[in-house]
Amino acid sequence: MAQLTLYTAKVCPFAHRTEIALAEVGADFKRYEIDLANKPEWYASRVNPASKVPALAYGGPDVPPEEASPESTKIPESLVLLQLIPELFPDASTLIPKDPIVLAKARLFIESFSSTFVPAYAALFSGQEGAEKLKAAMKTVIQARQQEGNRKYAVSDEFTIADAAVVPFIARAELLFSKDLTKAGGSRGSEFIAEAKVDASLKPFWDYYALLKERESFKSTWSPDAVVVAIKKILEK
Amino acid sequence: MAQLTLYTAKVCPFAHRTEIALAEVGADFKRYEIDLANKPEWYASRVNPASKVPALAYGGPDVPPEEASPESTKIPESLVLLQLIPELFPDASTLIPKDPIVLAKARLFIESFSSTFVPAYAALFSGQEGAEKLKAAMKTVIQARQQEGNRKYAVSDEFTIADAAVVPFIARAELLFSKDLTKAGGSRGSEFIAEAKVDASLKPFWDYYALLKERESFKSTWSPDAVVVAIKKILEK
Ligand SMILES: N[C@@H](CCC(=O)N[C@@H](CS)C(=O)NCC(=O)O)C(=O)O
Ligand SMILES: N[C@@H](CCC(=O)N[C@@H](CS)C(=O)NCC(=O)O)C(=O)O
Repeated sequence: MAQLTLYTAKVCPFAHRTEIALAEVGADFKRYEIDLANKPEWYASRVNPASKVPALAYGGPDVPPEEASPESTKIPESLVLLQLIPELFPDASTLIPKDPIVLAKARLFIESFSSTFVPAYAALFSGQEGAEKLKAAMKTVIQARQQEGNRKYAVSDEFTIADAAVVPFIARAELLFSKDLTKAGGSRGSEFIAEAKVDASLKPFWDYYALLKERESFKSTWSPDAVVVAIKKILEK
Repeated sequence: MAQLTLYTAKVCPFAHRTEIALAEVGADFKRYEIDLANKPEWYASRVNPASKVPALAYGGPDVPPEEASPESTKIPESLVLLQLIPELFPDASTLIPKDPIVLAKARLFIESFSSTFVPAYAALFSGQEGAEKLKAAMKTVIQARQQEGNRKYAVSDEFTIADAAVVPFIARAELLFSKDLTKAGGSRGSEFIAEAKVDASLKPFWDYYALLKERESFKSTWSPDAVVVAIKKILEK
């Protein structure tokens, strides 16, 4: 196998997707933490011109991450990596469903989450009117799972890319909003979480999340304390 | 093979992607034209709740498209379908590169086009300041191909999902803007195309498009006259 170096950040939900994928396939890789509050100057020029995490350096000589050889292929974008990683290790995980129709449903689930939950999460974090939208997004998750007959995971009884794509955002929403760690300040976040937790119509959402939280690839890549520290640093800026 | 029914519209660049994919794999399918200016009432309820084309009905009994059996699986979203179609017919086409890294590059190419060319095209069509952005998007295409060493197609010497995803938009930009068929009216569109055609820095873009236009799967699915008629109907509304 070619060498793999992941440029990532504990705080970032997009990057977290790729760490889960690497854990699922059991890949041997170098992990390099990018401090988003103080990005190294070589990162944009040598790794990702968009200057975002995650990015994967694939192949080339086995050099220290800071050196990022021009001979390796640099690949950004969490959803591209979430598919690439299991494709590099075929049969090592259940991430990519074997049935093309189930795979299409996993991609639709991600598409729907990306256009509902992700912007609602960002809105509530920034202090805009995100609470109603976030609740609607949770219901969209519930409906999408119902449509598939409430399988164990998002679209199947196996853990797939759909699950890996969403759990980093749900975990951060619960963690940060319940502590009111938002740009807006105030108690809108903790009020939202408190209400959502007792809202009977949202119970299937929390049940699904409870299952995702137990997944080994999530537990081994989730560092709530580090996320809190990093978010506080970002909020203080 | 299960039955396939594609709900599509000649005018729609998203739907065109899936028609190209079906032509590339040589699939046997029923094609149903949705009149976007006058959508059948059953379409949202039986096929796509979002009421958009394209959508594919997969499997179930072989019924007329208007009946859209509840037993078939309905799949929307052009980019989901663009991957599903070749996955349903493995080895029938070159759409999905065998090398996972090349496939990742095809997905990145699509991601980049979707966030640059597609919104710039929509902006110029609506009469906003899209011209400069469209030119920048064309340069992004040129650079992305350059980075891959100017292969014959977008990311490889083979025709892939990257090419199928972009050609419907380029063809409509050229056709509609050169005839000033835009919501804004005026001559901004035709001026843009006239200038872009003689701009030496954009030549590699037009050379790439010239090659895409020659692809049989494009030629057999492209109906400029029908697109003009449909757009005129939309503009008159
Ligand atoms: N579309 C990208 C988004 C990645 C992204 O936005 N990452 C953020 C952190 S969560 C980032 O690196 N932002 C740049 C910065 O903070 O300087 C993906 O899916 O990978
Ligand atoms: N994200 C969708 C977009 C599809 C879309 O916007 N289709 C348009 C026509 S180009 C549509 O059906 N609009 C609804 C309408 O015109 O009523 C995809 O990629 O398939």
